[in-house]
Amino acid sequence: MADRVYNFSPGPAVLPLAALEQAQRDLVALPGVGMSVMEISHRSKTFDAIFTETRQLLAELIGIPAGYTMLFLQGGASLQFAMLPMNFLRGVEKPADYVLTGTWGNKGKEEAEKQGQVNVVWDGKSHNYSYLPTAADLKLSADAAYLHVTSNETIQGVQFPGDPKFGTAPLVCDASSDFMCRPIDIRKYDVLYACAQKNAGIAGVAVVILKDEMLERTATGLPSMLDYQLHAKNDSLYNTPPVFAIYMLMLVCRWLKNDVGGLAKMEKRNREKAKLLYDVLDACGGFYQGHARPDSRSLMNVTFRLPNEEVETRFLTEAKTHRLIDLKGHRSVGGIRASIYNAMPVEGVKTLAEFMTDFQRRNG
Amino acid sequence: MADRVYNFSPGPAVLPLAALEQAQRDLVALPGVGMSVMEISHRSKTFDAIFTETRQLLAELIGIPAGYTMLFLQGGASLQFAMLPMNFLRGVEKPADYVLTGTWGNKGKEEAEKQGQVNVVWDGKSHNYSYLPTAADLKLSADAAYLHVTSNETIQGVQFPGDPKFGTAPLVCDASSDFMCRPIDIRKYDVLYACAQKNAGIAGVAVVILKDEMLERTATGLPSMLDYQLHAKNDSLYNTPPVFAIYMLMLVCRWLKNDVGGLAKMEKRNREKAKLLYDVLDACGGFYQGHARPDSRSLMNVTFRLPNEEVETRFLTEAKTHRLIDLKGHRSVGGIRASIYNAMPVEGVKTLAEFMTDFQRRNG
Repeated sequence: MADRVYNFSPGPAVLPLAALEQAQRDLVALPGVGMSVMEISHRSKTFDAIFTETRQLLAELIGIPAGYTMLFLQGGASLQFAMLPMNFLRGVEKPADYVLTGTWGNKGKEEAEKQGQVNVVWDGKSHNYSYLPTAADLKLSADAAYLHVTSNETIQGVQFPGDPKFGTAPLVCDASSDFMCRPIDIRKYDVLYACAQKNAGIAGVAVVILKDEMLERTATGLPSMLDYQLHAKNDSLYNTPPVFAIYMLMLVCRWLKNDVGGLAKMEKRNREKAKLLYDVLDACGGFYQGHARPDSRSLMNVTFRLPNEEVETRFLTEAKTHRLIDLKGHRSVGGIRASIYNAMPVEGVKTLAEFMTDFQRRNG
Repeated sequence: MADRVYNFSPGPAVLPLAALEQAQRDLVALPGVGMSVMEISHRSKTFDAIFTETRQLLAELIGIPAGYTMLFLQGGASLQFAMLPMNFLRGVEKPADYVLTGTWGNKGKEEAEKQGQVNVVWDGKSHNYSYLPTAADLKLSADAAYLHVTSNETIQGVQFPGDPKFGTAPLVCDASSDFMCRPIDIRKYDVLYACAQKNAGIAGVAVVILKDEMLERTATGLPSMLDYQLHAKNDSLYNTPPVFAIYMLMLVCRWLKNDVGGLAKMEKRNREKAKLLYDVLDACGGFYQGHARPDSRSLMNVTFRLPNEEVETRFLTEAKTHRLIDLKGHRSVGGIRASIYNAMPVEGVKTLAEFMTDFQRRNG
């Protein structure tokens, strides 16, 4: 541990040390197999065991009942932004409803507009995406192909407080940056997708969980690699899957189950961590200006500004001397962002909170 | 080494031991960085250094001159099968010419047919893809958008003996299973793409090398993630790239340059390895029946059958006791396939050749 820093990167992001150490131990040759997990065929028994365990752990952790299909695809959430409307909006005489809560919601909407009719049912642009809507705020279509939400906006640091309940259209959720940060009721969702590299693993694999009914509605004539139904029929093995990324996802899920004790305990720990930082914002008398309105604050990405850019630069420079790394806000919004995903240890957040208090004392 | 087997898997496949050991050493924390390479931001200086070195090594090894762009994309060659015609065939009043030399060429053609007009200029189906065409065999279109070839067919084990020279249309090559197995003249190609997991790294990243002129011809209105021009403008960082897969590609390229000594030396070693096995086929008096006609034999995938399936099963079972693993032919063609990619040590091939001779003595 001595040479590890506290990594507040928004993704790729910090991983559980237990998962990294396990991967390191077996990297050259899996015990009893004689090959690295990076070298095994995706049609081998060894990979089949890894893939099966990954699915079982996800199903158990999230509580996925029968009637859902899990896919493991490449291209991250960015490819899902396109696949989703290609499968469910193309050739359909209905609009898709999009709730725009930040940068990623907008990116999803832009890709949908290339495939069909889009209805923006709420847009937080006027207040720079600092808070989230309630059901009463939305101007829903009478008969939408689906309603798309982003459960957590990584860049702005706003997060829905629980499972959204908006109308009756199939609910599609981009959960990339808060996947498995807390329990959800998956039965409320028709499609939920997440890239792994923020809260669940490494860049290179996205998890897509679909209600089986949705698989019957996919458009025809799609490129094979962009066809949910085809991937489902082939059990995510139509092409070579990202074997190592799936293996890392399994190790992270093992950590969530065995070391953390499940998503309810993970949520408790995440709430404790977030509170440490939001308490500093609330007590600072305006030195730190939080971006999110308190009712919309993210458990995953804590975003705030300092009095001016010069002080922000000094904050970032001094933070590094405390081994607090990658706290710079996204280039599109500036300021500071502390990404405190599942794998960020409480000690890292405590160190940051103490540094913030001390920095204010010296600069406030 | 003691617990490593000889892995003849067609992909994901054997990796250089030096690359695996280097990855293992630094897996928990890159020296001086304090994070795993799996945890670093793709916008960080650390990743920038990895990405720059990967590109420089590829450019140096392959000899890529100015005027070419290298992209690093997810989705493997399977997604390239679709991206290619989406970018260069969609909305164009010309056909794309496809040379069908085996399973993968056919897969590429099927995806192209969804996007525009396809002209099959040669199809080896009648002889079960056992040999390759010469320029005189092709019925080329007068004015094709591009001509697509597969330099090595992994499943059938046939490989063009050198850079194809077929007509004047832009030449597009799927080099997935023989990428960097020998020097090529990249100036003969307008687009060359390869998934990494056979000869250059791990599953999860594909390298696409395009002549800059091609980037000006891409279709408009494409999904962002499927637009070569957009990826080029964003230097393959439009979305989060598969950081760890690119890192492994870098380590394999370092091995190719420093340990092997470049692609000419790699070819020499590959020819020695392939000769060990083809010499057994040529001397066996028909016990082993090679699939490929001698002039079309692959340096990468050596495919053959034994007198009957029972003997084949015994061959596979006994091979395992000699630590010779994953020699079963693809389910679509059966028989035996020895994939002897760059990273397969000469000792592994020698062990297999000796086993084959001994097995014939006992079963012939």
